[in-house]
Amino acid sequence: MSAKAAQLDHPIASVLADRYSPYAFADRDVSSDDLRSLFEAARWAASSYNEQPWSYILATRADAEAHGKLLSCLVEGNQGWAAAAPVLALGIVTHPFRRNGKPNKAAPHDLGLASGNLCAEATTRGIAVHQMIGILPERAAELYAIPEGSEAFTGLAIGYAAPAESLPENLRERDLAPRTRKPLGEFVFGTRFGEAAF
Amino acid sequence: MSAKAAQLDHPIASVLADRYSPYAFADRDVSSDDLRSLFEAARWAASSYNEQPWSYILATRADAEAHGKLLSCLVEGNQGWAAAAPVLALGIVTHPFRRNGKPNKAAPHDLGLASGNLCAEATTRGIAVHQMIGILPERAAELYAIPEGSEAFTGLAIGYAAPAESLPENLRERDLAPRTRKPLGEFVFGTRFGEAAF
Repeated sequence: MSAKAAQLDHPIASVLADRYSPYAFADRDVSSDDLRSLFEAARWAASSYNEQPWSYILATRADAEAHGKLLSCLVEGNQGWAAAAPVLALGIVTHPFRRNGKPNKAAPHDLGLASGNLCAEATTRGIAVHQMIGILPERAAELYAIPEGSEAFTGLAIGYAAPAESLPENLRERDLAPRTRKPLGEFVFGTRFGEAAF
Repeated sequence: MSAKAAQLDHPIASVLADRYSPYAFADRDVSSDDLRSLFEAARWAASSYNEQPWSYILATRADAEAHGKLLSCLVEGNQGWAAAAPVLALGIVTHPFRRNGKPNKAAPHDLGLASGNLCAEATTRGIAVHQMIGILPERAAELYAIPEGSEAFTGLAIGYAAPAESLPENLRERDLAPRTRKPLGEFVFGTRFGEAAF
C-alpha cells in the first residue's frame, strides 16, 4: 500500500480514498477524451439555483506557449513542480448571478463541487490532480481577458503521478509524507459546535 | 432511464452521473454506518494547506427534537420538503487559518470539495443529498454556539429519494424536470475567457 493511501476509519469508495495531490508528474500526456470526461464530470456538479458559476481555462503541453502562459499565472513556488504536469488549468468563479447580477454567496463553494467532481473522474481514470490556491488572479485576468465579476480562483495541475524520486528534496519529503486528516469526532458535531456527533 | 439521469456528452463515472438533488425523500432511515462513511468521504477531500476548514452539524429524525432544531435553521421555503429527509446537516466553514488567524480564501471552496465527496459517497450507497444555500446562519450560530470565524454555510438534506408524486405540485414539477447544464464549450476555455477549448 502506498504511503499516500488514505488511512480510513470507515469504508469509502476507492474513487475518493485513492485521490491525492502529487508533486511529481510522469512524462505522459493526458488524452483529449480523458480531458473531456474530466470537465464533463465538473459540468454535472450541483450548484445553487443551478447557476454553474464555474469555468476553466485549459492548457496542455501539446501547445508549449499556451502551457507556459498558464504556468505563469501560478505563484513561483508552484511553478517549479507544476511545470512537469502535462495539463494545467485555472478554476474560475463568477460571483454575480447571471439572471439578476446579485452576489452569489455559493459561487466559490460550487466551484469546489465542480472541481471535486473533476478530481473524482480523474481518479477513476488513474489521473491525478493537484489543486492550488497559490495563483496570480490579476495576471490571469489580464492574460485571458477574464471579465469583471469573474475571478481566477484555483490552479489545477493534471497528469499521471510519478515516483517522488524525481523531485528536489524538500518536495520529495512532502510527496512521500503520509496523508493526515482530523478524525470525524473533531468536525462532525451533534448538539453543539465542538461536540462530536458519533 | 429516469428523467434525472444526466444527459452526458462524454462518459463519466456513474457515481457522478447518477447524483441529483431530490425534493422527495422516502420514509426510510439512513444507517449510522452509512452516515459515518459519508463524513469519512468528506474527511479525505483536498484542502488548501490541508487546513480542512469544514465541519458539520448533524441531526437524524431518531432524535425528533434535534431534527426539528436543525430544520429551523433552514429558510422557510426549504423547511417544507426538507422536513421529510431523515437526516439533516449544516455545512460549516471556518474562515481564518488555525495556525495564524489569517483569512483562508479557499475555505468555502474547500467546504465544497468536502461536501462533494460526501455526495459521491452517498451516491455509491443509493443515498441522495440535496444541498441548500438557503439557511439561517445567525440562527444556527445561536442554536449551536458556532464560534466567531466559523459560519453555517450550507444545509444538506440526506436520505433515500422517493417518487415525486408525494410532493405538492410546484415541487413535483421541479423534481420531475430533466437536469440541464451548459455544454463544455460554454465553460472550458483555451486562449481566452469565452473561447471554447475543445
